[in-house]
Amino acid sequence: MKIIKRNITSPEGFIASGVHCGIKKKKKDLAIIYSRIPADAAAVFTSNKVKAAPLIVNQDILRKNRKIQAIVINSGNANACTGKEGIDDVKKTIEFTAKELGIPAGSILVASTGKIGMFLPMDKIKQGIKYAISVLNRNGGSDTASAILTTDKIKKEVAVEIKIDGVPVRIGGIAKGSGMICPSMATMLCFLTTDILIDRNALSSALKTAVGDSFNLITVDGDRSTNDMVVVLANGLAGNRKIYRNSPGYRKFQEALSYICTVLAKLIVRDGEGATKFIEVKVKGAASYADAKKAGFSIANSPLVKTAMYGEDPNWGRIVSAVGNSQIKLNPEKMKVFFNGIQVVRNNAPVAGGREKAKKLLSRSRNIVILVDLGIGKYECSIWTSDFSPAYVKINAAYT
Amino acid sequence: MKIIKRNITSPEGFIASGVHCGIKKKKKDLAIIYSRIPADAAAVFTSNKVKAAPLIVNQDILRKNRKIQAIVINSGNANACTGKEGIDDVKKTIEFTAKELGIPAGSILVASTGKIGMFLPMDKIKQGIKYAISVLNRNGGSDTASAILTTDKIKKEVAVEIKIDGVPVRIGGIAKGSGMICPSMATMLCFLTTDILIDRNALSSALKTAVGDSFNLITVDGDRSTNDMVVVLANGLAGNRKIYRNSPGYRKFQEALSYICTVLAKLIVRDGEGATKFIEVKVKGAASYADAKKAGFSIANSPLVKTAMYGEDPNWGRIVSAVGNSQIKLNPEKMKVFFNGIQVVRNNAPVAGGREKAKKLLSRSRNIVILVDLGIGKYECSIWTSDFSPAYVKINAAYT
Repeated sequence: MKIIKRNITSPEGFIASGVHCGIKKKKKDLAIIYSRIPADAAAVFTSNKVKAAPLIVNQDILRKNRKIQAIVINSGNANACTGKEGIDDVKKTIEFTAKELGIPAGSILVASTGKIGMFLPMDKIKQGIKYAISVLNRNGGSDTASAILTTDKIKKEVAVEIKIDGVPVRIGGIAKGSGMICPSMATMLCFLTTDILIDRNALSSALKTAVGDSFNLITVDGDRSTNDMVVVLANGLAGNRKIYRNSPGYRKFQEALSYICTVLAKLIVRDGEGATKFIEVKVKGAASYADAKKAGFSIANSPLVKTAMYGEDPNWGRIVSAVGNSQIKLNPEKMKVFFNGIQVVRNNAPVAGGREKAKKLLSRSRNIVILVDLGIGKYECSIWTSDFSPAYVKINAAYT
Repeated sequence: MKIIKRNITSPEGFIASGVHCGIKKKKKDLAIIYSRIPADAAAVFTSNKVKAAPLIVNQDILRKNRKIQAIVINSGNANACTGKEGIDDVKKTIEFTAKELGIPAGSILVASTGKIGMFLPMDKIKQGIKYAISVLNRNGGSDTASAILTTDKIKKEVAVEIKIDGVPVRIGGIAKGSGMICPSMATMLCFLTTDILIDRNALSSALKTAVGDSFNLITVDGDRSTNDMVVVLANGLAGNRKIYRNSPGYRKFQEALSYICTVLAKLIVRDGEGATKFIEVKVKGAASYADAKKAGFSIANSPLVKTAMYGEDPNWGRIVSAVGNSQIKLNPEKMKVFFNGIQVVRNNAPVAGGREKAKKLLSRSRNIVILVDLGIGKYECSIWTSDFSPAYVKINAAYT
């Protein structure tokens, strides 16, 4: 696997653009991703029972249609909790784009991110779509990566090349996300493109695995938004022999897709609202993978652990307590806790001098690894998260 | 039911004291509650799988013994995650107290709250016990209420009198708790005394109901500590006819106990670390009580909701999203959301002008009621919580 330049426009046949249409004051707020030929699509949507209008419409489109050729994305307005009018606005967006691009309405998906509970300014959206179509190009991926951001401070893009039966195949991705929901802003969004020729079921299965390995293992504040969505388009233009679930190339593709998603997921955490530390919570020695993941999230979502990390305080009592709270299979006597390799807990009691050593290390590190060894099994899982700073509170309190 | 003065020393036959023994620098840190005659006891302990040493020993004592006559409590050190030495220290505390008071070791309980992972200073504890015993008195309840505090800013005490078959019976309570776990501090503690004559099973059942109605419905930061404990002692000195689960007086007693616990639970929330608002999250119209409670906690534990409340921002998108995240039975189209009586959401869409009206109201209110009507059933539940302020982060980051 080779890391290559650019992003979603690296794979053959994809063009894109990102423009300003006026939903936001100055920043880019509308983007289009377009494949020269209709592409196979797979998607994963939020598990939140309240789903934003575009997700409801997209799910319906993907149920009825096999091929997708374009995705329209706006930022600044999530079109969530907007009732019937919100649904109508998504349909109008699709119809307008279909006419402008001269492709079927059933081959277009829509994504929105931004404030909840506000109606889309449809005139601006339409003007933006016209403009975005007029500037679609092979180098437009970076503008797209910019146009989908809300409170994000950094652009999130990556691309790789792998060889399937000797044929080069490319995968690119962009993402946005800062708080799981920003100040009344919704969303983690991720768009993936690839020129691999792949069976649609295999594509769907690879995406599920990749999302489980990446976006489902991060947490900024424990909230899943109404708009979360990951979509992959595969247009088959690489010219490889078609890949199925049992093809030798499947695993290679799947791992590359997981890599892309993990890079983007970690960038979301690094860009966490108010984040000053990047934290990996690794739980090993668990009785099951589910237990390791549960304990990891219990630690990573604990405001007490997150504020301690902001304070560079190796406050392991909060970690032990968070593990105990997760209600997993546990023997406190066997638990060990380490900060960046320094052991602080053994046999449910403090390691002499551990806290002092760990404290020194934390104050020097922007990257923190919290390792909990449960000592009772063979399973492990890593969760990535950020700390909780006064800036997080300020960002999220100061909406108006 | 009549609210009366004082607290745990209001019921007949209870004396108490609170002194400074040197675990903390200046503040009171050791307390004793003593009943003139052995009392029936019931207790509820933390569901955290990591339990502090005193809880492990207390559970063992309550399994073997029917009557309790004294409780020794220290603050400043939680004696949690202290391994075998921690257990030994609890046993030494009990043996020493038994000798000093001249009562059986099996009739003494111990509670600790404070920093996790540090060993108790046993010499100071022993001196403190001697001193506390020497000053036990009928007005000592308030000193006890002070001596069990850690980061708390206010003392939490209450007492009521009810009549059982015409005989006056008293119930008193004190509690501590600020963060569910404070800066490496553990704990919510509550001690209840009553002079009612009651069957032990009835006492135990009344306590479970009271805790379910009160302490189990509050959240400051979603963490349950390693030391949480609620104990009630009933010495029977009121002279009423003995109460059983099916006695007419049981319900009266149970309601009074629930009242006491609810007052103390709300005081814990009002005293929440860095709290500037007291928030009641009421979920009604749910398909089940469990659903109402789950949705309520999902809202009350959301950092995004809590920071919005700090910012006096009626950001209902976060509330709707938190409900959707709770995975309860739900029809978004039927959900209504109100802030202090002002409706902001109807049919999964904003109510015109609602946000503006609610914003004005929130900026004037220290008490906020978030009402979510799911509109699909008959069950309801209220959760009490506080907001998330920059002060919360500072308190919890600045341990060292």
